[in-house]
Amino acid sequence: MIITIKAKTPKSELKKLIIKLEGLGFNITKNDHANKVMVNVFGDTTTIDDNAILAFLFVESVTRISAPYKRVNRDIFKEDVIVNVNGILIGNKQPIAIIAGPCSVESEESLNMIAASIKKSGAKLLRGGAFKPRTSPYAFQGLGVAGIDLLKKANQKYNLPIVSEISAASQIELFEANVDILQVGARNMQNFELLKALGKTSKPILLKRGFANTIEEWLMSAEYIVSAGNPNVILCERGIRTFETYTRNTLDLSVIPIIKQKSNLPIIVDPSHATGDWRLVEKMAMAAIVAGADGLMIEVHDNPEMALSDGAQSLTLENFDKLMVECRKMAKAIEREI
Amino acid sequence: MIITIKAKTPKSELKKLIIKLEGLGFNITKNDHANKVMVNVFGDTTTIDDNAILAFLFVESVTRISAPYKRVNRDIFKEDVIVNVNGILIGNKQPIAIIAGPCSVESEESLNMIAASIKKSGAKLLRGGAFKPRTSPYAFQGLGVAGIDLLKKANQKYNLPIVSEISAASQIELFEANVDILQVGARNMQNFELLKALGKTSKPILLKRGFANTIEEWLMSAEYIVSAGNPNVILCERGIRTFETYTRNTLDLSVIPIIKQKSNLPIIVDPSHATGDWRLVEKMAMAAIVAGADGLMIEVHDNPEMALSDGAQSLTLENFDKLMVECRKMAKAIEREI
Amino acid sequence: MIITIKAKTPKSELKKLIIKLEGLGFNITKNDHANKVMVNVFGDTTTIDDNAILAFLFVESVTRISAPYKRVNRDIFKEDVIVNVNGILIGNKQPIAIIAGPCSVESEESLNMIAASIKKSGAKLLRGGAFKPRTSPYAFQGLGVAGIDLLKKANQKYNLPIVSEISAASQIELFEANVDILQVGARNMQNFELLKALGKTSKPILLKRGFANTIEEWLMSAEYIVSAGNPNVILCERGIRTFETYTRNTLDLSVIPIIKQKSNLPIIVDPSHATGDWRLVEKMAMAAIVAGADGLMIEVHDNPEMALSDGAQSLTLENFDKLMVECRKMAKAIEREI
Amino acid sequence: MIITIKAKTPKSELKKLIIKLEGLGFNITKNDHANKVMVNVFGDTTTIDDNAILAFLFVESVTRISAPYKRVNRDIFKEDVIVNVNGILIGNKQPIAIIAGPCSVESEESLNMIAASIKKSGAKLLRGGAFKPRTSPYAFQGLGVAGIDLLKKANQKYNLPIVSEISAASQIELFEANVDILQVGARNMQNFELLKALGKTSKPILLKRGFANTIEEWLMSAEYIVSAGNPNVILCERGIRTFETYTRNTLDLSVIPIIKQKSNLPIIVDPSHATGDWRLVEKMAMAAIVAGADGLMIEVHDNPEMALSDGAQSLTLENFDKLMVECRKMAKAIEREI
Repeated sequence: MIITIKAKTPKSELKKLIIKLEGLGFNITKNDHANKVMVNVFGDTTTIDDNAILAFLFVESVTRISAPYKRVNRDIFKEDVIVNVNGILIGNKQPIAIIAGPCSVESEESLNMIAASIKKSGAKLLRGGAFKPRTSPYAFQGLGVAGIDLLKKANQKYNLPIVSEISAASQIELFEANVDILQVGARNMQNFELLKALGKTSKPILLKRGFANTIEEWLMSAEYIVSAGNPNVILCERGIRTFETYTRNTLDLSVIPIIKQKSNLPIIVDPSHATGDWRLVEKMAMAAIVAGADGLMIEVHDNPEMALSDGAQSLTLENFDKLMVECRKMAKAIEREI
Repeated sequence: MIITIKAKTPKSELKKLIIKLEGLGFNITKNDHANKVMVNVFGDTTTIDDNAILAFLFVESVTRISAPYKRVNRDIFKEDVIVNVNGILIGNKQPIAIIAGPCSVESEESLNMIAASIKKSGAKLLRGGAFKPRTSPYAFQGLGVAGIDLLKKANQKYNLPIVSEISAASQIELFEANVDILQVGARNMQNFELLKALGKTSKPILLKRGFANTIEEWLMSAEYIVSAGNPNVILCERGIRTFETYTRNTLDLSVIPIIKQKSNLPIIVDPSHATGDWRLVEKMAMAAIVAGADGLMIEVHDNPEMALSDGAQSLTLENFDKLMVECRKMAKAIEREI
Repeated sequence: MIITIKAKTPKSELKKLIIKLEGLGFNITKNDHANKVMVNVFGDTTTIDDNAILAFLFVESVTRISAPYKRVNRDIFKEDVIVNVNGILIGNKQPIAIIAGPCSVESEESLNMIAASIKKSGAKLLRGGAFKPRTSPYAFQGLGVAGIDLLKKANQKYNLPIVSEISAASQIELFEANVDILQVGARNMQNFELLKALGKTSKPILLKRGFANTIEEWLMSAEYIVSAGNPNVILCERGIRTFETYTRNTLDLSVIPIIKQKSNLPIIVDPSHATGDWRLVEKMAMAAIVAGADGLMIEVHDNPEMALSDGAQSLTLENFDKLMVECRKMAKAIEREI
Repeated sequence: MIITIKAKTPKSELKKLIIKLEGLGFNITKNDHANKVMVNVFGDTTTIDDNAILAFLFVESVTRISAPYKRVNRDIFKEDVIVNVNGILIGNKQPIAIIAGPCSVESEESLNMIAASIKKSGAKLLRGGAFKPRTSPYAFQGLGVAGIDLLKKANQKYNLPIVSEISAASQIELFEANVDILQVGARNMQNFELLKALGKTSKPILLKRGFANTIEEWLMSAEYIVSAGNPNVILCERGIRTFETYTRNTLDLSVIPIIKQKSNLPIIVDPSHATGDWRLVEKMAMAAIVAGADGLMIEVHDNPEMALSDGAQSLTLENFDKLMVECRKMAKAIEREI
């Protein structure tokens, strides 16, 4: 970390900063730059809050030389993390993992029809929401525990590991017993109490990017989970909030190669939530694969028009089957499997 | 709600949509517009998910005529909500409520020094964080229960009601017993499990705007709390995330008159978190008052340079005292009191 | 267009609006919706300014049923526009057009080396800036007319049509005589004086999306050119400004299928400017192709480290050659050619 | 400028960078930081393009110690610029300059009625658009030269200096002869050809902030004008584009104290364009004054409902008169005049 000190700062003032930093265990050197002083801080600077340094009136700027995350940092851990979900491996050169299913679990009949069909089309995992975070208190909030039960039954019947969103630390026991991948939704990406709790399980965690969070904040949230003891984190890009209103969010595919550079974690893409429009899902899914995604999460419904939530972004069973055909072509073109 | 149907849609298809809506209890009329059909939906449309309508392939657009919130809607409730915090009234023409204190509670000595000083300067409530949401797992996370204890003691000693952030539903019992205003942080504005739980208390809730949430989403989160039974909600603008990097966030003061038009809830402003820079706090606090804010929340520290968090945005005790002088001039200029 | 009128509006007030609209030649009908009146406006509503309607105090909202653009509207013109650049066709099922070259033209030697190399790798057009829009007045502003001369020479020597940015209407004569595709830069997307002037030439125009412009605004800028008489417009996505700071801009690939739905114009992608980082260009170029782009524009330099501008986003000649190998695989996978 | 070099970079590689920089006339020193090398660059680094440095593969980051602008830099020029517009002084402790008038000049009768009324209410300058930048080619584009003539007549009749937007360098002669302040619109803030041309006049320039431009980019555009020879630049904040759709743009009032810190130029605020809603103008105007604005630009129309553009954001003559009463109270509260 390099701290730039304003011109004409009295030495006595500067000394206060240096004493504080040395008191925290850092090694300090100084050098002059034009009429300013540069303070170099050596040690594990991940524990320093930039704002605590900027509180010194004579500090002009703070520049980090190393990233504020460690456990998920590619510079430190060169090997790709591969997450094992009941024998399905996600990450590195493993087959691209396709997760599909309805936004919300609605009924046993519908869930079974979807599960049977996506399995036949080639999906490897089944998604479905039971505890739904909804903007409106008057909207369908999911079936809750009953939804988890239906997912568990579908899991047993079709041998598809299941992915479902956990929305509070109090649900962890239920999810650990029944769900194969615990999804953290975009709105909870910085629900740090939840992240800390998830760090204490050993279950795979699917960490969605918050719709207004930077890549660094996302990796810091992953760091919460990994540093608390759970290395099984899969990142999921699902679009960011921008000024553009035509799509629900703007899918940011450049994060795929960026995450590969900066982190050792696997990354998948959810084009359904990103675009909010099923007509855009196919092209964005294909693009995500060739950009290097380790998996996809796709919303599928047997009857999107009658879905209780997010019908506009759900593929029909037939369209999902067609999507898989295209995705296999893409995987082949980059010499990967699905 | 008005639903526009694409040209050349077969009547049999359109009928499916109408049957669905009538099945949900709505009254439906139709009229033609150029070569398109408009479907008018009458009834309480707050329960309809736009995306469930857009799932019908022949639907072109969905337009809401009335807002998706009811309990916090000025059109329905004309009278301003006034929140009573141990005798301090917030909202309507009541004196502008000044909340001040450190970002985090750090020690009894420091907290007492701050409390005594801000009280003398004119603050009416004391803020302080005990459970701190931090981007980094390695940053100071607050004193927890011990922090709440120190706040409670300061409350008793200085007769200043206290405001502190609650970060999980599991903390409600502790907060109900000790804290006067329960603050929901920006990152938890859409933590719906927390909002539902807060709807069951009768304590005043300070609901911060999420840094990437629209005004409508903010009011929907307030609606969660109010519709669950707790009418004592105070909104707090604290800046939104934009492309500008000079300030931490961009303070959006236009929300003050907008909230006054659209909702009956009181609104206060936090210029410290919005700007992230103490040198900007005074001007933004003054501007917030004349724009109609019902209160301010200001970070103050006896020694910002030694603060464990957010020192860069904290005012010294002296600067807070000067700020109050300016704020009183502003209140007088608009014929309000502080 | 549908105009919603607030409840309790006196008929005499509403009449003023209707007289204004009828005076402008529109047909008007009314119908009631709950306690509100809906005014339906029939005719060519592209000439109406929403804000002129919202000026009536009793108007609650204005909803457009049809898009505000006509000449570039897929609903009206079903056939894809194919732009002919000296025999190279761009759009529809034509081969994917690869445009490559340096950010700025720097010297004859360097330009020739680049042109020879990209031609061998498979590029079909040569790009190079002569009039450079730079944020700083102290940065290299391009070679100007001398740069255009060097491009023209390279064109003749290597038989590569050339693409260069025009920054003012006063340059049109020079560009018409020497340049094959006139590029409008992102910062000039709403320089309407320039757009009007370009509508009077018959040269192909490459219209970059403004870094903070919506899809609708982009199509309206294309409409300026086409409605003024020049149908040869190619759209170019180059990233939008968001809160994320890791990349220069956020590449929005979902616009490719969206533009194909809404407009009949061809669309290409510039991953170099979008990301600002050559290490991300390959993956984003591959993704753009499979998402349906009609072409790519790639920055290439024989010695990026010595480039006078934008070296960080330029590929070396070798890396561009490798990129072309990958792009051909992608084109093959979607049954297109390069 | 400090350049961080990646660990394990061969000395021979680093030497290439140093030779390049020394060749450009800079003095270079190096020091080690943990396992990395820091290269310090001394001299006028405003001429260096960050991207040209980042093109060296072994460069990790580039940090600027001094701002990239000089002529408009408060660190270098401590004294406030005061712009003289025909005897009306803008900036420093001068009276707050109120500019008012219609979005577009529409007719002599209407313009005269507005001019007479705003003058009586206390405005010091008259604004009016003659060359209107409009998103749609089908919208009213302004009266052009005839509009400038009407402004000139109103100027002579009411002794109000006039402000009008210039949209191309080709209009400079016309504007120099007739207009007192030449306004650069938000969409042209980075039309560098126009900025360079304006740097050659001596007329006051009102430089609006682009709706998606940072403060630094804004000051760089001012630097274009000032470095080309025209010191008479007034900045104008008019809102930035964000995800919020309730207002047309988000007014960023924190730029007022920021500009005062970083630059010596005067700054005014346009709450009409920022909000797009006349009902928000009063509060935002009042807030701008107490935040330190040197002036305001307000849209006023004698009959907003019949305005040809932007009626929704225009105040009536009566409401403008009331606004002036409130603004005077605000000015008084901060010990300034209007």
